[in-house]
Order: sequence, then C-alpha cells, then structure tokens
Amino acid sequence: MSWNTKFSEDARAIEASEIRELLKLLADPTVLSFAGGIPDPELFPTADVTRIRNDIEGNQQISREAMQYSATEGYLPLREWIADRHNTDNLELDFGNILVTCGAQQSLTLLAAALMDPDAPIAVADPTYLGALQVFMTRRPNFIPVATDPDGVVTSELEKAFQAGAKIFYTIPDFQNPGGMTLPLERRQEIIELAHKYDVAIIEDTAYRTLYYDAPPPASLLEVEGEFLGKGKWQNEGLVIQIGTASKTLVPALRVGWTIAPKALLDKLVILKQANDLQTSCMNQILAYRLFSSILDDHVLTLRQVYGERKDAMVKALRQYLPNNVSFTEPEGGMFVWLRLPEGLDARKLLEVALAEDKIAYVPGAAFHAKGGGDNTLRLSFSTCSPEDIDRGMKKLSDLIAREARRQVA
Amino acid sequence: MSWNTKFSEDARAIEASEIRELLKLLADPTVLSFAGGIPDPELFPTADVTRIRNDIEGNQQISREAMQYSATEGYLPLREWIADRHNTDNLELDFGNILVTCGAQQSLTLLAAALMDPDAPIAVADPTYLGALQVFMTRRPNFIPVATDPDGVVTSELEKAFQAGAKIFYTIPDFQNPGGMTLPLERRQEIIELAHKYDVAIIEDTAYRTLYYDAPPPASLLEVEGEFLGKGKWQNEGLVIQIGTASKTLVPALRVGWTIAPKALLDKLVILKQANDLQTSCMNQILAYRLFSSILDDHVLTLRQVYGERKDAMVKALRQYLPNNVSFTEPEGGMFVWLRLPEGLDARKLLEVALAEDKIAYVPGAAFHAKGGGDNTLRLSFSTCSPEDIDRGMKKLSDLIAREARRQVA
Repeated sequence: MSWNTKFSEDARAIEASEIRELLKLLADPTVLSFAGGIPDPELFPTADVTRIRNDIEGNQQISREAMQYSATEGYLPLREWIADRHNTDNLELDFGNILVTCGAQQSLTLLAAALMDPDAPIAVADPTYLGALQVFMTRRPNFIPVATDPDGVVTSELEKAFQAGAKIFYTIPDFQNPGGMTLPLERRQEIIELAHKYDVAIIEDTAYRTLYYDAPPPASLLEVEGEFLGKGKWQNEGLVIQIGTASKTLVPALRVGWTIAPKALLDKLVILKQANDLQTSCMNQILAYRLFSSILDDHVLTLRQVYGERKDAMVKALRQYLPNNVSFTEPEGGMFVWLRLPEGLDARKLLEVALAEDKIAYVPGAAFHAKGGGDNTLRLSFSTCSPEDIDRGMKKLSDLIAREARRQVA
Repeated sequence: MSWNTKFSEDARAIEASEIRELLKLLADPTVLSFAGGIPDPELFPTADVTRIRNDIEGNQQISREAMQYSATEGYLPLREWIADRHNTDNLELDFGNILVTCGAQQSLTLLAAALMDPDAPIAVADPTYLGALQVFMTRRPNFIPVATDPDGVVTSELEKAFQAGAKIFYTIPDFQNPGGMTLPLERRQEIIELAHKYDVAIIEDTAYRTLYYDAPPPASLLEVEGEFLGKGKWQNEGLVIQIGTASKTLVPALRVGWTIAPKALLDKLVILKQANDLQTSCMNQILAYRLFSSILDDHVLTLRQVYGERKDAMVKALRQYLPNNVSFTEPEGGMFVWLRLPEGLDARKLLEVALAEDKIAYVPGAAFHAKGGGDNTLRLSFSTCSPEDIDRGMKKLSDLIAREARRQVA
C-alpha cells in the first residue's frame, strides 16, 4: 500500500524543501544562526500580553466571547482598526474590506485558492519569499520570475511578464524577503499603471513595512493605486490586494494576519476561509486588537532601534570583512541582507562547511528562485543576534567565503 | 472590472450557503436557538485557562517559546499526548503519526488537498457535516452520497459507492453531525473490511466521540482497523485517518485539532500545512496540552452530565409534543437531534416562520446533503439551552409543525 499513488496532482507538485531539512541542524544551540526570519524573542511584549490577558479573563462576558466560536470574517474591532490604519481619502476602506487570517501565510493560501488555476502564469520577483512560492506551488501555476536589481523588480521586465499573460503579481515592496530591496516610488507608480494596462491583480505583502531603520518606505502599492484611481474608485476598480501580519512586529504565535481587498473579492475569500478553518482564534484576535491599539507604535519604535543597530552592525562588518568579489544589499529596513558570491561558489555546499567548521548558519538563496538559479546567493538575517555576534559571525563567514573561493580557484 | 472573471475554477465551485445568511438573524438575542453546534460558554474551563496561562507567562523561557514561531508538526508534548491517548497495542502510534492543526476543519482541508482531485468520487454519508462538504467542494470532487438509517451509513450502500470508484470515505461514526446516529460495532467492522477490499482511505471524524451520555461508543474505526490488521501493521497498511478537536470538549477558540495518519501520509500533510499557514499557534498548543493533561477527563464528565440532561429533555419533549408523522433520532451522545418532517413540508420555509412568529431557530437539513434532498429534514442542537428552554422551544416547534402541516393539507 503506497500513499504516493493516492496523492492528488496538487499534492504531488509540492515537496519538502531541502532547506527545511538543513535547518533542523539549527536545533544545535552552539550554532550562531543568521538563518531564520524571525523576531527576537527577548523583545516580545510579554508584560503587555499578561496585562491584557488578565483584563480579558477578568471580564466574564468578554472571556466567554473570546473562547467561543466566532465570525469567519474576524473580530469586528480588529477589522475596524485595520481598516482605519490603512485607509486613505481615496481608498475609503471599511471593515468590510478586511478579512482576519491565521497569519499572512494563510492570506496567501486563500488568495491562491481564489485566483490561481493550474498552469496560469503568475509573476513573482526573482528572488522572492519561499513561503509564497510553496503555497502557490500547491496550485501548480506557471511561475514567471521577474528580474530584480538593487531597487527591486525591474518594471520593464515586469511588463514582459504581463505581456506573456501573467494575471497575478506577488510582491514585497518594502525591505523584501529575501533580497532586502525596497521599490522606489516611481517603480510603484509604474507597477500600478502596468497593472491597470494589463488587468493584473497585485498581491502586496507588507510583512516588514513598519520595520524601517532610516526613512519610512514610499507609499504602499495600495495607497499608490488609491491615488491613481481617485477618490472612491478602489472598491470597484482596485487591483491591489494588501496582506499584513502581527508576526514580525508583535508575536508570531498570535497567528493573526489580514487581507485588505475589494468587497467582491473579500466575500469569496470569506467563504474559502470558512471552508479552510472556520475562523481565526477569537482570543488571539482580541489580544492582537488590544496590543495593536495600545502598544504597537511604541513597541515598533523599540524594534526599529534594536534591529536598526543590528542591521548597521551587519552592513559595517560585511563592508569590512567581505572579499571584494562578493556583493550585498544594504537594506533600509526588515530583517535581511542578501549576498551574491562569485559565480561557481555554491551557497548550499558552503553552508555545510559553515555549520561544520564555523558553527554559523544562513539560508542558501536557490530556494527563493521560482525556476532555479541563485546557487551562488544566500540570505542573512540580523534580527536575532547582538551586534557583537553579528561582527564575529560576519568575520567568520567572510573568511570562509575567501577560503572557499581560493580553494575553488586552486 | 469584475472579480468573478478572475476567480479560479475551484473558487467558482463554492458559494456562500443560504444557511449562513439565515443564521445571521441569530444575532437577535431574543431568539431561542437550537441551531449552532457549539459548546455552552458557561461550561468553559475559564479558571483553569487563567491558572495555566499564569503558569506559562510566569516562566520566561516557556513564555518566549510559546510566543515564537514553532514547528509545523506541532508542539511535541501535545503530539505525544495525542499519540498516547489514541494508541492501542496493534496501532503502535507515536508522535510521528500526529499533526496538530487549526481545528478538525483544517485537518479536513489538508486531507482534501492531499487526496482529492477534481471529479474524483468521494463517498459521504447522506446527510453529513456541512463543513466537510464545503471544504471538499473546493476540490470539486464527485460526491457519492451513501444512504443512512438510524444506525448510520448502510454498509451495502457503501459497498456500491466503493464499487462505483470512491477511493475516499468521510464519516463521523459517533453521534453524527447532523443525524445523531452512531455506527454499531458490526458496521464498523464491515466498513474496515470493505475499505481493504476496495482500497479506500477512510477519514474518521471523532469530534463528538467523548461526549456520550449513555454507554461509550463502540471501538473507533482506527481501533477496529488496528485489530483487523494485527500488531504493527497499521503504519504501512492502514487506511484509516482519524481527526479530532479540542473545540467540543474544551475551548473552540484554541483552534487546536489534530490528524492521526500513517507516517507516509503525515509527512505530506506537514508539507501542505506549512504551505497553508506555517503552524498552529504555539501558545494555544501549550495551553491545550496542559488542559488536556490536567483537567480534560474531569471536564468531560461535567459536560456529559449537563449535555446529557439537555439531550434527555429534548427527546422527552419531542416524544410528548411532536405530531405522530414526524420522526426523529434519539442520539446517545453529541449535540444533535435530527427531525424528518412529513414529505412536502420545507424546513427552510418553516424556519422563516419559526424565526418570525416563535423566535426559535434550527438548521434546515437540505445543506447537509451532498447532492440535494432532505428539504423536509432539520437539525436541532441541545448543547446551549436549559432543559426548561428546551421544553418550551420543542413545544413551540411542535405546534408550529402541526400548524404548518394542517395549512399544507388545507
């Protein structure tokens, strides 16, 4: 009896990534990890969580509501808060445009189910977020990777993808995962114009948007589209769907994310969400709402300061130690620096050596490419290490790269 | 611009149920509702939740672990507890057979993704759980409804479905939703024999299994299969996948459910879960684990007593008040009684009158039928009403049915 013969065509299309196996080695606490794109647990707002929980559990009515089944769309005050937070005069968002999800990953799942058919062309940045590729892969689309430069996707290349028939474009405009790039305003405006010229739905992933360390990022694609369309038009003519999450700024285990979409699409997403898992935990939503509306802005200030210092430390160390033939992005926010090794150096093989000899870890870049390539790239995260560890780790990594490059030449 | 033209074929196949719209009327607090299949919030173990939360949040290390990203498979102690709880000498379950999900609904979602292709025949009881039909519908299978009698699915009819090519059978053997039926042991044994004769995967939904009010239900299909196969064979030859949930016995908003499956299938489900939503909230899993391992058995004793009294009150009232030409199931557990009205009486139209004139609600039965029928059936839940309210409500409902039946004759 083999389950393989029973798997659906969709299920056969998705396999465990080799990264996943590799990263299991990270359970070793002596490894200095620059691999995970995760928040520093020391910065979790634990005291606020306890205070708010006590408030909720101290009120019998709210406590019972929090523990019961609840509406698929989400907790109304949270939906209203999200709508207010992202509204502009042009967009005219309200709670009817908001679906609360189990993290931005589930937002992608529902959008993929709603919009993607087998073999349909989907434009994605090259490289892009691995988790998006994985969930899209369960729909067996035809990925069209779009070339990027240090400012993100190249719009002339994006237009070619739209001309080739892509009707969906997934993008992380701010401090991209994994590349660290941020789209300048002009490119955002071009993307919106192209989307409307070719009738392409845009999935804008804002996971890292509030984590800026220098200046705030340009207007979001959603905001740019609101201005492009003019007041009150987005509800019927909007093509931008924006997704967000509490995982990077507050607490990943809330599993609270959201989707902002025109109502005609949102209604379908609600039906799919109901079929998928009925609803997101009401107690987690109430907690998220109270954290958002009380401490979020102050908390993000702290994160910006701490992560900003770590980003500076990483950029400084890489400038100081890296061999000249290795390039890297200098992100203005988020959690990631992207390295390009000399051609021929394989970041996966290098990782084996890095783990075994230097006890340091990162994520090889190949998996972030929808259709292969990027064997000589890698992603470094600076969010969980002290500036001192970052300096030490970048020194070791740079030495290793230089050593391996010499070995390759020899 | 119409989103309808952009929807995937799968998304087009699923529509909002009319029930959903109807049940929005239940927000009216003056309506006496027998509609929802939900636990009574007055019975939530709120003090235990608070005690456990304080324990978790009082320990910095556990608190941080609880709030962070975590393994897709689930929290290891919870997986071990679930494996132990459902193990038998024959099955030899361990944590590697357990995937923690966001409720049993997500277990169904992942199984549907793993095992169902468009047009593939799927056997389901007629009637069966609406939420299962909804999630399966997103895979556009070919439902084969299998006739039921007061003991559940009729096995000779099930064999016909298997002969017609069904390779999956979804079933709720204990106190079925919506029908209230429980499969006797002999039928369970026949089902396992048929599954192995025709190589059919069985999805066994145990949502209500521990909520018995008379004797415990017979051995589960998983246990029966373990005995059928003999010691140590299930891992490689098992066809039964069992799903369960904390929603009916503890707290729905935990959004903690599970899937028990042979490892070869479980590994694929883990990949699909990771793509779907990365993981189930670790803090909710730790809370569920501690509730399970400390208070579950005592708490279920309380639920059995309270819900059992309500079940008795409903059965007694229906016996007393219902016209003779209305039949109903007498469940031995769970939350539901199933009514069959005289042919020609439409339970949906009746509900409109029940809400408007008598301020009582139930769920019309048609939606529980995969391929239509059941217009004269309805589901009553006794889980959230006092025996007094149940008596009052059943009197009103019975009078209404008698009135409408007379009106129909006239």
